[in-house]
Amino acid sequence: MGINISNFLSSKSKNRKMMEFQDLDHLDGLSISTICANLYKINRDDLVMFYFRDGANFASVYTKSKIISENIKWNLNQNAKKIFSLLVNTRNANAFTGDQGYQSMQNISEIISQELTKKQKEDEDKSKNIKPKNIMFGCTGTIGEKFPLDKIKLKIPDLIKNIKYTQNKYIWMKAALAIMTTDTQPKMAMEECMIGKTIIKIYGIAKGSGMIYPNMATTLGYIFTDADLSNEILSKLLKKNVENTFNAISCDGDTSTNDMISIFSTCKAKHGKINNITEKKLKYFDEALNKILLNLAKRVVADGEGASKFITVKILKSKTEQEAKKIAFSIANSPLVKTAIAGEDPNWGRIIMAIGKSEATINLKKLSIKFGYIDIVQNGKLSSQYNEKEAADYMKNSNIEINVNVASGNKNFTAYTMDLTKKYIEINADYRS
Amino acid sequence: MGINISNFLSSKSKNRKMMEFQDLDHLDGLSISTICANLYKINRDDLVMFYFRDGANFASVYTKSKIISENIKWNLNQNAKKIFSLLVNTRNANAFTGDQGYQSMQNISEIISQELTKKQKEDEDKSKNIKPKNIMFGCTGTIGEKFPLDKIKLKIPDLIKNIKYTQNKYIWMKAALAIMTTDTQPKMAMEECMIGKTIIKIYGIAKGSGMIYPNMATTLGYIFTDADLSNEILSKLLKKNVENTFNAISCDGDTSTNDMISIFSTCKAKHGKINNITEKKLKYFDEALNKILLNLAKRVVADGEGASKFITVKILKSKTEQEAKKIAFSIANSPLVKTAIAGEDPNWGRIIMAIGKSEATINLKKLSIKFGYIDIVQNGKLSSQYNEKEAADYMKNSNIEINVNVASGNKNFTAYTMDLTKKYIEINADYRS
Repeated sequence: MGINISNFLSSKSKNRKMMEFQDLDHLDGLSISTICANLYKINRDDLVMFYFRDGANFASVYTKSKIISENIKWNLNQNAKKIFSLLVNTRNANAFTGDQGYQSMQNISEIISQELTKKQKEDEDKSKNIKPKNIMFGCTGTIGEKFPLDKIKLKIPDLIKNIKYTQNKYIWMKAALAIMTTDTQPKMAMEECMIGKTIIKIYGIAKGSGMIYPNMATTLGYIFTDADLSNEILSKLLKKNVENTFNAISCDGDTSTNDMISIFSTCKAKHGKINNITEKKLKYFDEALNKILLNLAKRVVADGEGASKFITVKILKSKTEQEAKKIAFSIANSPLVKTAIAGEDPNWGRIIMAIGKSEATINLKKLSIKFGYIDIVQNGKLSSQYNEKEAADYMKNSNIEINVNVASGNKNFTAYTMDLTKKYIEINADYRS
Repeated sequence: MGINISNFLSSKSKNRKMMEFQDLDHLDGLSISTICANLYKINRDDLVMFYFRDGANFASVYTKSKIISENIKWNLNQNAKKIFSLLVNTRNANAFTGDQGYQSMQNISEIISQELTKKQKEDEDKSKNIKPKNIMFGCTGTIGEKFPLDKIKLKIPDLIKNIKYTQNKYIWMKAALAIMTTDTQPKMAMEECMIGKTIIKIYGIAKGSGMIYPNMATTLGYIFTDADLSNEILSKLLKKNVENTFNAISCDGDTSTNDMISIFSTCKAKHGKINNITEKKLKYFDEALNKILLNLAKRVVADGEGASKFITVKILKSKTEQEAKKIAFSIANSPLVKTAIAGEDPNWGRIIMAIGKSEATINLKKLSIKFGYIDIVQNGKLSSQYNEKEAADYMKNSNIEINVNVASGNKNFTAYTMDLTKKYIEINADYRS
């Protein structure tokens, strides 16, 4: 599975699937560097450094698994006001690696902080006094294997040497490729918006195509912006916008020990101070952040392991959002629903089954179900218009929408998932070999 | 998928898998009759009548889905003291069939009660005055298709004509075959035990290989005994023994609208009155009932759609049974665990992942994991004895045991499941065609 960047950069590439790539560009205050640390048997970049030369404000949301990886423990234990570098490695999750895994984070963060301090002195004749606590880690890969400390340490000097102060679409693509594991597609997205009269950039990359389920959803997602926002505001914005984006997707109902979504702001944009997330000036940023998170989350689902179809499950008019969510994920996680869709079978009985087992309170007489625009169930009865041929034709689409109206309130929730195919089994029965 | 009874009866049959069949025999007070009502396109028996000539005491546990089938609604609405007949059909679940489905139950129960009354007058010159409420129904098959009332009505006279007062292993096999849908194996089990000085028979059949998850677990399971037990005692015994048998199995985490386990006692055995389930005399019956339920439940898992391996997940020394159950099913329902086992990959990291996402409180430092007899994790660390080659060899077994010791209490729970293979997708992406 060698990764050839040109496969993805050519607009005619067969690898382009479901969504076009967007070209990410320079973001003031951020540098990116990638390298092959030989973590895989094949020759591919597997280590990425994001470097914020003046530091970045930041916020993260992490997996809700009771067993978390050592890098997440490290991140949670630091009490830094700024992050100077985010280092992401693939192949090894640094989960269930105990002291060796945690000490590796300590060790690497010491080296990076020293090397970056040295670099700053060389480049600018002054330094920001970078500490180990200013270094953050993302890890993804196999759980329970010894963390490859030596291989990574060996490459840090080169990784730092490669840093360029101007970024372009190629380095973003390289970064998005370097964080991939079983992904078949790099995942990038961008938004631009205004805060006051200032144009703000929001760039993001993500990875993940298995073990995808809230909370948290994707394995890794990193958002970068030049907006000048405090850690507290970033945290509130991220938590709020993750709910109906990364926490609304599911590939297989499994949750990783390593899930992590972070936002970093280099604060280079000059738009004046924002004191509160309710400020009017922040509205467009808030919306753009939601858009980029949803864009990335959907790319994760679209690239879900073995996916042949993208599925949107909309629950409408529920009593509470909680109930809507229960029903949405009961459908989105049902192997029987997902295999029926893989088989292009309009087997709506399985939707009924999944609603029934969701534990949500349902008034059957009010229940309506549509596949896209096609009425299936209306007020608890098979629609008089129902035509199996028409429904079967609809199932041939690569985007399937299931709309469930429970007509018992005014809350909605939309979940995103993909079908369950033989390819999923193939990938996961044979992941480590 | 023609079903040839001789395939299953020959002891050398290739279809014999994992567990040998037991030969069920005559049970006083019970008659069985099967027929082909042409519910499938192929020629196979799809309708079974269990007839209790003097009525049977009974108890049932049903699906906990919020959407239940019309036959279960019918069963729940009747207030009978005795059941004279249980009619089971396949191909159509009678779920989401509304009034047509419910009225069909009414209609068929009227015909059966009249015809059986007539038969009793012919055979014995007296009748038990059988009412529609004394007829019970089990249905399994596709959800949401019109119930095939006419086809079934047409066959009831012949079904009753076929009744013989002496049963043998062939008629039990025919019954077990006739209730199959995607099952590849009929499921039968038997136990004999003593109540006081009287030998008691307990016979059972079951079906189900998808949509298997508590609560309830299997699609259909029927237990028959000649013990003389009241409805109340049967109900208590059934509820108690279902917990660690049919409610301990999972194939795909999906729950049917039709799940149903019933026990019927013809009360022909002469062992004197039992007033309470705590009576010492009942101990062996209680144990035998658990054994037969577990036997049938395991057969359902072993025949789980596409299963190539049988998986036992034992959680030991948990604080509460609730917590043990959470962990057990988090592992047993994880697609990533199940695909790893299908791939014979000792990917214990996924067990860790599944424990982590279970929401149970875990003290990582006390956690131990074994595959069979092989130590994997000891007190939160990879065992110093761990040898990947040995673990990989273990995974080649067709029975895989995962033991998780959480060392935080004294409660245990064992769940049973199977691996997730391409065959599962094949069966379920293509079920209705």
